Amino acid sequence: MLRHAAHHMNLLVVGSTAFDTIETPHAEAKRCLGGSSTYFALAARMFASVRLVSVVGQDFPTEHRSLLESRGIDLAGLESKPGKTFTWHGRYSADMNSRTTIDVQLNTFGDFQPKVPSKFRDSRFVFLANGAPATQMSVLSQVASPEFVVADTMDLWIERERDGLCALLKRINGLIVNDQEVKQLTGESNLIKAGKAVLAMGPSLVIVKKGEHGCFVFSPYFHYALPAYPTEKVLDPTGAGDSFAGGFMGYLASCDTISIWNMKRAVAYGTVAASLTVEAVGVDSIANADRATVERRYQDLLQFVTF
Amino acid sequence: MLRHAAHHMNLLVVGSTAFDTIETPHAEAKRCLGGSSTYFALAARMFASVRLVSVVGQDFPTEHRSLLESRGIDLAGLESKPGKTFTWHGRYSADMNSRTTIDVQLNTFGDFQPKVPSKFRDSRFVFLANGAPATQMSVLSQVASPEFVVADTMDLWIERERDGLCALLKRINGLIVNDQEVKQLTGESNLIKAGKAVLAMGPSLVIVKKGEHGCFVFSPYFHYALPAYPTEKVLDPTGAGDSFAGGFMGYLASCDTISIWNMKRAVAYGTVAASLTVEAVGVDSIANADRATVERRYQDLLQFVTF
Repeated sequence: MLRHAAHHMNLLVVGSTAFDTIETPHAEAKRCLGGSSTYFALAARMFASVRLVSVVGQDFPTEHRSLLESRGIDLAGLESKPGKTFTWHGRYSADMNSRTTIDVQLNTFGDFQPKVPSKFRDSRFVFLANGAPATQMSVLSQVASPEFVVADTMDLWIERERDGLCALLKRINGLIVNDQEVKQLTGESNLIKAGKAVLAMGPSLVIVKKGEHGCFVFSPYFHYALPAYPTEKVLDPTGAGDSFAGGFMGYLASCDTISIWNMKRAVAYGTVAASLTVEAVGVDSIANADRATVERRYQDLLQFVTF
Repeated sequence: MLRHAAHHMNLLVVGSTAFDTIETPHAEAKRCLGGSSTYFALAARMFASVRLVSVVGQDFPTEHRSLLESRGIDLAGLESKPGKTFTWHGRYSADMNSRTTIDVQLNTFGDFQPKVPSKFRDSRFVFLANGAPATQMSVLSQVASPEFVVADTMDLWIERERDGLCALLKRINGLIVNDQEVKQLTGESNLIKAGKAVLAMGPSLVIVKKGEHGCFVFSPYFHYALPAYPTEKVLDPTGAGDSFAGGFMGYLASCDTISIWNMKRAVAYGTVAASLTVEAVGVDSIANADRATVERRYQDLLQFVTF
């Protein structure tokens, strides 16, 4: 199932667009462009044609829209609704390994019912960013014949919408979650056991993100581990996970086949994308990255892990 | 300095021998053989001739001595003194990532003044297991011309014996510490910065152990990361760090040169040794491991990290 032709490199992402107010020990920023679909798209656009489905309010400025469009991201699915854009205000701990949400205003994102434009319905690669499982499922029903679907989720849905999440897991190819989430989802504290337990729930690929410790990848065909890119300059971890997913899905969408080796390489590209994101506050670094920078870091990472 | 001939594969370890009482969520054991020198030696003996310097009391049974000797470990430096052997009683948390010391009786280890037997003084590879920096330094003065010296330390010495520790760092080739210790030693919360900061303090090799997340390796010539071996069966983490050091130093002592590639391979052998230790309570697993098992796991690990 993992090895097949991928003739289309169109990649659909459905997720949030937000204004983020961020406090870290080293930096602060007010109402900067954020959201899962934004970080994902800005990473993925370096590899593939990205189609974005999200929602904003009428306070969403033209400049943000222009930035995304200038990076080749198709915004035909970026709905503008009466009201305000989703806002999030978070504060990171001293070591930046945890964060507190100071304030959240869902606004127009609160009742987001994603509508996949008809011209996006032939998308072959689909990333369902964190959202209610029922909403994620509704996206799937609007895509004609997706080849490779990956979803993110969070503690809220694992706790409150387990049935919907379990139904979704049977319909998708891959799940990207963090270490706490995979433990919560499976009840297993050993990450290797937890990863395998998710495979038994449906997906043929499970990526467990461990922040500064990198990630584990589980499939019935291989297991794999990659450390985080060794960056000394972590300014703002916001969006690292979505950038990782964007680099991963973008690279994979650009490949001829979804082979084990292409997946492993895709995980490395995801790791590189995340490293770029954390080196600036907000989307600045990932929005301005180019493929040459990415390739240099990819080679560094290869050196870093080869023995 | 890192690349030179290593004609002698004699490896000296100086550290503790103990009776451990261990409580984990999955297992319990009373007064089993433990101690840093024991775990180190049982891992290293698979690769090199190990010479052990430690101290026990008169309650130390012949069977433990026989076990170590049957594995080819030279016990000429295992001093037996009036009184009791060091005992430790610890309890691990549910996820086994932290532990509480319930009781500690230093006994004969309390005033351990290591005496390196004259026949050990030509040792070329030396591992100074966790101990007071002054004690570690006294060992160095008893070895004629060591080629490659690696030390371990802990929070207690970083806090109370910083000057002694800093003096030691200028005399050794490598330091093996965990992530908390390297942050405490350097005041850097970013592990990459912390690792580099230790290099500036003297050693040309710093290995930062991150438990289930594997390790980082820093040198002026290369940086390197390796995940932990993906074991599902973690019964007892006691001794994992010393077994890691034993696999690392043992393999390196068996090499013709201390090259970058041999050091990277040695880190992988250390990782394999640690994975064997954690799969049983006490020393059972590492004491009974053979080189063939180690080589199989080494190949697994290579697969696990190659992209």
